[in-house]
Amino acid sequence: MSGNTMRREIDFMLYRWLGTDDIRDMPYFQDQDRSDWDAFLDLSGSLSWNEFQPHFKAGDRDEPRLVDGRVRVLPGLVKALHSYLEAGLHLATVKPELGGMGFPFTVSTAAMAELMAANVAGSAFVMLSIANARVLAEFGTPEQIEAFAMPQIAGKALGTMCLSEPDVGSSLGDVDTRARFDGEDALGARYRLTGRKMWISAGDHDVTDDIVHLVLAKAVQSDGGTVPGAKGTSLFIVPAMLPAAGHGDGRNDVSIAGLNHKMGYRGTPNCLLNFGEDGGALGWRIGAEGDGLRIMFQMMNEARINVGLSGAAMAYRGFDIARTYAAERVQGRSVLDKAAAKPVRLLRHPDIRRMLMSQKAIAEGALALCLKAAKLSDIAAHAGDEGKRRDALNLLSLLTPVVKSWPSEQGLVALNQAIQVHGGYGYTRDFDVEQLYRDSRLNPIHEGTTGIQAIDLLGRKILFEDGRSFALLLGEIRRDAGAAGQELSSEAAALLDLCDWFEALVGDLLKAEPKEAALANATGFLEAFGHFVVAWIWLGLADAARGHDDPAFAEGKLWACRYFFAAEVPRIRSMTALLASARELTAAVPEAVLSA
Amino acid sequence: MSGNTMRREIDFMLYRWLGTDDIRDMPYFQDQDRSDWDAFLDLSGSLSWNEFQPHFKAGDRDEPRLVDGRVRVLPGLVKALHSYLEAGLHLATVKPELGGMGFPFTVSTAAMAELMAANVAGSAFVMLSIANARVLAEFGTPEQIEAFAMPQIAGKALGTMCLSEPDVGSSLGDVDTRARFDGEDALGARYRLTGRKMWISAGDHDVTDDIVHLVLAKAVQSDGGTVPGAKGTSLFIVPAMLPAAGHGDGRNDVSIAGLNHKMGYRGTPNCLLNFGEDGGALGWRIGAEGDGLRIMFQMMNEARINVGLSGAAMAYRGFDIARTYAAERVQGRSVLDKAAAKPVRLLRHPDIRRMLMSQKAIAEGALALCLKAAKLSDIAAHAGDEGKRRDALNLLSLLTPVVKSWPSEQGLVALNQAIQVHGGYGYTRDFDVEQLYRDSRLNPIHEGTTGIQAIDLLGRKILFEDGRSFALLLGEIRRDAGAAGQELSSEAAALLDLCDWFEALVGDLLKAEPKEAALANATGFLEAFGHFVVAWIWLGLADAARGHDDPAFAEGKLWACRYFFAAEVPRIRSMTALLASARELTAAVPEAVLSA
Repeated sequence: MSGNTMRREIDFMLYRWLGTDDIRDMPYFQDQDRSDWDAFLDLSGSLSWNEFQPHFKAGDRDEPRLVDGRVRVLPGLVKALHSYLEAGLHLATVKPELGGMGFPFTVSTAAMAELMAANVAGSAFVMLSIANARVLAEFGTPEQIEAFAMPQIAGKALGTMCLSEPDVGSSLGDVDTRARFDGEDALGARYRLTGRKMWISAGDHDVTDDIVHLVLAKAVQSDGGTVPGAKGTSLFIVPAMLPAAGHGDGRNDVSIAGLNHKMGYRGTPNCLLNFGEDGGALGWRIGAEGDGLRIMFQMMNEARINVGLSGAAMAYRGFDIARTYAAERVQGRSVLDKAAAKPVRLLRHPDIRRMLMSQKAIAEGALALCLKAAKLSDIAAHAGDEGKRRDALNLLSLLTPVVKSWPSEQGLVALNQAIQVHGGYGYTRDFDVEQLYRDSRLNPIHEGTTGIQAIDLLGRKILFEDGRSFALLLGEIRRDAGAAGQELSSEAAALLDLCDWFEALVGDLLKAEPKEAALANATGFLEAFGHFVVAWIWLGLADAARGHDDPAFAEGKLWACRYFFAAEVPRIRSMTALLASARELTAAVPEAVLSA
Repeated sequence: MSGNTMRREIDFMLYRWLGTDDIRDMPYFQDQDRSDWDAFLDLSGSLSWNEFQPHFKAGDRDEPRLVDGRVRVLPGLVKALHSYLEAGLHLATVKPELGGMGFPFTVSTAAMAELMAANVAGSAFVMLSIANARVLAEFGTPEQIEAFAMPQIAGKALGTMCLSEPDVGSSLGDVDTRARFDGEDALGARYRLTGRKMWISAGDHDVTDDIVHLVLAKAVQSDGGTVPGAKGTSLFIVPAMLPAAGHGDGRNDVSIAGLNHKMGYRGTPNCLLNFGEDGGALGWRIGAEGDGLRIMFQMMNEARINVGLSGAAMAYRGFDIARTYAAERVQGRSVLDKAAAKPVRLLRHPDIRRMLMSQKAIAEGALALCLKAAKLSDIAAHAGDEGKRRDALNLLSLLTPVVKSWPSEQGLVALNQAIQVHGGYGYTRDFDVEQLYRDSRLNPIHEGTTGIQAIDLLGRKILFEDGRSFALLLGEIRRDAGAAGQELSSEAAALLDLCDWFEALVGDLLKAEPKEAALANATGFLEAFGHFVVAWIWLGLADAARGHDDPAFAEGKLWACRYFFAAEVPRIRSMTALLASARELTAAVPEAVLSA
């Protein structure tokens, strides 16, 4: 596909549905207008489809490899990344005082969606670096910003996040990497780090000479021990190349222990990194001791939105490929026109139509969900009114696990259908959908598995804050459902019913003791809640599309909304079936049953 | 895994649940007993795990390749296949008068499950050849059997099925391959075939010198035309090597136009074959002109059971790998033991437990479903009582689309969870689950897509025979539910409710005009019906396990049954949500909405 279809979708969502123009009311954005953003979207879209997309398949076929202890990336992708950095597209959300454009996250997210649709493996390099630089800009000292953020801003370095270890994935409070205090210098408290970090995307490459690692580790205390759990974690800036001032200018003590060979997402090197095999990697603490995980979560939350976004973007691309194929490929008779003398296009078969509608509902719903989250992020950061900022932050915090997991899980459903529309051809590497499916399978895993998101949603974001953000969301949904147009009245009524149902369900869970009991089936709750949220999104999209210039476009939104309410919304209640019986059914199953 | 766990499961299902011993009451099997079958299962299991399984990953990594116009298969797999053929394991169901063992299909299916779990790509060679030889044995003349079945029985040739073409997948009545009459000889009516056949598994290889293709084509009529649709198809035996008698002994006019490069299932070469580029491939018609598709469906129905079986087998292996991993891997604290000072094994996390229970319910339920179908096939072929044979055939015919599609679709769900249990590791090629997931993705496509199965089930197997087989099934389910033990009473009651609900639903669909209207949402019906059937299977498994020697085994069946009824059965009704509105929602969506 060209980016045209996707850009039209993005424009609709940004301006007509989200009303992103109103962002200019916030002082931070007052000097910008849509023409600035459109120019950025034009350029980013053009690079996505013309520079990155051509290397989509090659990046899968010719995986990064280790040559003399360094990672070599597909040259075409290196070139595309250089174009991206030279064009300064990574500067969209960087503050103007650091040389950035200071654009809304909403706009940069929309641009990132196209890049991810075109080449998700390529997008990972810049996505991580952007998030890394934002952490540095927010929590670093001026000297740290100058030394470690500015090279990334200048496009001379890329950044990573180093959290997981071979034996520590979801439980980051247990990290085993150690940091020993090594003195103070102009860059702050200096440490020597030793440990191994696993699953490090873009952990090494030949795109830039330098790489800035943000490493979660435990500072060794004066008694030689460490503080257990999350409170014992601190965050360290560990550059691959040591800054000249006072430390020589050679390579830091960071080496590649190996590359992970993945099912998909192969264009992005994913590394096991050894820190400090030769005496200790030099790192400078960012933020206070013990604040590691808290600071990291700033980057993590942004990364979670981006994971969801990539799920949405790949589902969208798969949908676009599938509908194009279905409109052209002739195959069999349809039960709709039994009497047809000749075979008909796939598009005439009801089951193909159902799969396309499902993909449309998932891909567009997921994309809208991610853009909504991005807008909440802008409001939370920059709205003039404090109450607005707080509400937006609470809503975003509540929605983040949904934004991360719904597009991840449902994106796979959509891509599974995109393959199915192609029949046997979809199963071959000659067609892009099979790679999109493999690439997407990472999404329910990285940056917190779906199970982790579920516990975060039902536990931290609902039960342990007594349902306050949840009540805020219900208020929003009820308001939107009440304001929906007449032709959406039955969908609006169904949504209001769901509000009542969820309110009662959450009310019961809040009353239960201990609250943790419900967490045993948090995943079913997340699944149901995600569908509920997306039903709300769809009502809004269909409502906003009324009167669109292109009647087919508006009609498409209306049909997709109806499809989602007819096919998916009825499934919601049964998704939580295990909630009541969870303790018996999953907790109480004897171990012998599960282990042999 | 070794085969031990799976074999125990198979023994339970074969003997305790299905009571396969009673097959000996049928005259055809009277000279056999369990010790014969067990010896065969022992040998087949041993070869599966010791000869085939070691090449599981290499078969994926080192795909078959074209060398000088011929396909080379991984040498280790060739050797394993030779061992299999030399041991005569492919003879299990071949009639004794042709040199086979004449074993029940139930028993050979159980053995095939282990082979598929160990190495599905390897299993495809023999599975296809066995089905091919059975078609020859049933429909061929004595001369055709001697010339084309006996070499396969002797292990000197393997067989294929050649149905699809580049432009004809699901709509086999539209095949474009032509057969021109070329005279009669000792092997029957001889034709020259020209055309291209796509997706031919084991279409060429270096396992055996000869390959016997069964090719669906249209016989050219005296007016130079062909008969449109299925009635115009005939079946032809096209050997890769021409039989010596009268036709020289060179290669037939069949060539490899290319190999398909697939997402998974890579160990099996999948070919585009050209027939008759050099004047016409010689082929002998099997059966009457116009009977091609009808005869082919004998092979196809067997292949459909085998596709379901492979889905079940791979899900089972993934489950076994996942539970072993979960019992060993230590990671994080569980919401069940918040106070634990140290990280716990994955098995302590409720969400991991849920995913294991789900995999158990799917893998074992799917395996049992396939064995049930195999037993129906034996009864339909060999029961002494005609009424029993007819009922079994009708039930098997009704269940075949479920047997094909439920393990295919749900097997992917289970393997998705098996990956998820492994976290990031499950996404790497270092672990077998990612390959099982890729291999399994073929199952909803080949031998009739899920959408095709759905139309077959709701159309041909229910609506167009006025629900007679469906009523037969309801009778069986109600009988079993009525006889279930006390500890399963709530599950039995839920199953009886479902019987009533489905009876009413089908009753409504039977009354609707035109009946075809319902087919527009047949897939949702298939999904719901599959869950319903497997709920019945699970009630039976749990019931049969009561009093098992190993209490943990019996307890496992009981918990899995409860899990399926608690987590999955509540989803059934909503799966058919679209049935009522299907014509509007899928048929009536304007084409502009779907195509751009």
